[in-house]
Amino acid sequence: MAITVQKFGGTSVADAEKIRRCASRAIEVFKKGSQVVVVASARGKQTDELIADAMELNPDPPKREMDMLLSTGEQQTVSLMAMAMDAMGHKAISFTGSQIRMITDGAHGRARIQSIDADVIHRKLDTGHIVIVAGFQGIDAEEDITTLGRGGSDTSAVALAAALKADVCEIYTDVAGIYTTDPRKFPSAVKMGHISYDEMLELASLGAGVMHGRAVEFGKKYDVPIHVRSSMTDEAGTLITHEVSQMEGILVSGATIQKNLAKIGLIAVDNKPGNAAKIFAHLAGAQVIVNDIIQTEISSEKANISFTVGSADLADAKKAIEEIVRQVQCQDVFVRDDIAEVSVVGVGMRSHCGVADRMFKALAVAEVNIDSITTSEIRISCIVDLDDAEKALVAVCEAFELDKPADERTSPG
Amino acid sequence: MAITVQKFGGTSVADAEKIRRCASRAIEVFKKGSQVVVVASARGKQTDELIADAMELNPDPPKREMDMLLSTGEQQTVSLMAMAMDAMGHKAISFTGSQIRMITDGAHGRARIQSIDADVIHRKLDTGHIVIVAGFQGIDAEEDITTLGRGGSDTSAVALAAALKADVCEIYTDVAGIYTTDPRKFPSAVKMGHISYDEMLELASLGAGVMHGRAVEFGKKYDVPIHVRSSMTDEAGTLITHEVSQMEGILVSGATIQKNLAKIGLIAVDNKPGNAAKIFAHLAGAQVIVNDIIQTEISSEKANISFTVGSADLADAKKAIEEIVRQVQCQDVFVRDDIAEVSVVGVGMRSHCGVADRMFKALAVAEVNIDSITTSEIRISCIVDLDDAEKALVAVCEAFELDKPADERTSPG
Repeated sequence: MAITVQKFGGTSVADAEKIRRCASRAIEVFKKGSQVVVVASARGKQTDELIADAMELNPDPPKREMDMLLSTGEQQTVSLMAMAMDAMGHKAISFTGSQIRMITDGAHGRARIQSIDADVIHRKLDTGHIVIVAGFQGIDAEEDITTLGRGGSDTSAVALAAALKADVCEIYTDVAGIYTTDPRKFPSAVKMGHISYDEMLELASLGAGVMHGRAVEFGKKYDVPIHVRSSMTDEAGTLITHEVSQMEGILVSGATIQKNLAKIGLIAVDNKPGNAAKIFAHLAGAQVIVNDIIQTEISSEKANISFTVGSADLADAKKAIEEIVRQVQCQDVFVRDDIAEVSVVGVGMRSHCGVADRMFKALAVAEVNIDSITTSEIRISCIVDLDDAEKALVAVCEAFELDKPADERTSPG
Repeated sequence: MAITVQKFGGTSVADAEKIRRCASRAIEVFKKGSQVVVVASARGKQTDELIADAMELNPDPPKREMDMLLSTGEQQTVSLMAMAMDAMGHKAISFTGSQIRMITDGAHGRARIQSIDADVIHRKLDTGHIVIVAGFQGIDAEEDITTLGRGGSDTSAVALAAALKADVCEIYTDVAGIYTTDPRKFPSAVKMGHISYDEMLELASLGAGVMHGRAVEFGKKYDVPIHVRSSMTDEAGTLITHEVSQMEGILVSGATIQKNLAKIGLIAVDNKPGNAAKIFAHLAGAQVIVNDIIQTEISSEKANISFTVGSADLADAKKAIEEIVRQVQCQDVFVRDDIAEVSVVGVGMRSHCGVADRMFKALAVAEVNIDSITTSEIRISCIVDLDDAEKALVAVCEAFELDKPADERTSPG
């Protein structure tokens, strides 16, 4: 029998009326002949309220106790949703992370799932229940409650879908799906019908795209089709799967712009083995998350090394670099915080040349200066002036026709 | 090492400031050299709010889901209290009922405790933690969350004290202890220093006395001294223990008045074996809780049977009686809902005659008519007219000098 996992986020379950709407949606899928597992988040602003309650008592609360506190939000939602389904005449049962043995490591606040007891759920599904599982939470080997961190309920849902060998994991959100780019910045952006896990991962790492990377990684690893769709309509959203042949025709699937970035450059570093490692180990030790790194040789003895970080990490990064430059010999350090990064993502560029060329030409025509370029197999990113950010995004979107459905774009190459 | 269990009710933990006060109180006892286990209820009106949330979705919610929902209230309190203690520089750890294996039967909403894993708690106590346990909740053999019903957190606390072989179970409330009678009705009532489990059970069953009967039963069964005291002061409250020799001198410990009662009488029932059993089995089947029963023979073939029920059960009781009188042959049925019951309770009356006499005289002098009388080994109750209720209570309290501390009363007998 088919199994559908449906995940409803906090805004989708914010009040009684919305909980009923989610319940109806699950029952509808059940009546079409699928077993249904629902994963739900805490209602509306509840997690924020609980955090505020905690802060009032302790500005730096123990992480174990924070997880104990926050996990109650999801537990409330799932029991309420079971009650709603019962009122609609449907058999339903709710479970905490502990009850389905959602075993995680002990990293409170950002725990990683290790295993799930699918049998508990199958038994209830097989007796005609809709099973409703508290998202975002698990339990570690000590029976301590853990939470999965940002995007945790998405990860719960995809992990459950994997454990249950579900046919699809539906992620309900307040947007209609994944767009070619942010519609607030490029209003003619269109919803993608289909995207690959790899592209979605790139988009997520670029700060775009509705879903958190960890959930997508899980989907990729266990081959779970993920359907991102709106909780307000019945319209199909965006399906995330492994790359399929039809995707090959699509050169670029989406584009993003990232602001709140800064770039730090080290000029003329001694080009000795281990110097770069020293720099980035020191940054990691200072809890700084480094995005792209560019290193270029300027002579046989010297190299320039630059990297980007989120603006929030800039102060820590600068401090760490000041500490390390004494050891690595470098002529000068510069910092730029007036930058943005425009990127295009697409599995099509694996097999087509000319993507970079088309992107650079578009930026040139728009008179956007490119500070630096980094690429992956399915991504090209350009650092540009912050003032040029919107203009750069629009130029790139137009160049790759991201205002048209994929099958209406002019052929790639 | 000494172990103290402290239970804080909902009003004692209603906000951050109050949670801090409870935390301080626990730390204070710890610093005096006792290990400390705290049992806490849900904050303030939170349980009521959760019930309202449930009712909005389902006026008759499944009991399992209700327990799942309500148990989050206590879970929030205990994690917040652990954070408060951490902020005060003290090691603390919170546990759900599930985590300490507070195993109950599966009677959702009124579950009974079967066992507790004291080892989990001892391990944390032995490493210098204050352990904070969510009251009111347990888990059944299916790993479903259960709640213990009215007075549940008191029961959790006393059961934990029993399992841990604690030296005392302190129940913190918003009153200073157990009074000889309700101070709102007899303002010169005094706080008792000491009372026996049996007396407390009688008082609880008469609707008086701060603590729920189940918690007291647990204390009696496992010999746990229970100290009922105010969370607002350091003053000693009332200690509930087994009868001790000093109590023998106390004729009557307390007095109560119960209103919201009704009496149903069956006149001239066929006095055949099994007829009374039939009547009360039928009432039990209708979920009617019967208080006192009086049966008197009026001839060799006929008897009068009467009993009291809570006013809330009167309609159900009348319906059940109408059904059963067809089978048991009875001349007439009467109902009185204008009654009250005045009672005195005291282990001293076991060994002293004259208590009933003194009570009846006091009521006679006060011109209170006695409708009927029931007694147990340590209790005498009289049904009186509802209009006479206050007058009857005051007369009885004065007759037994319940406005004086026990050791200042004139000698019994």
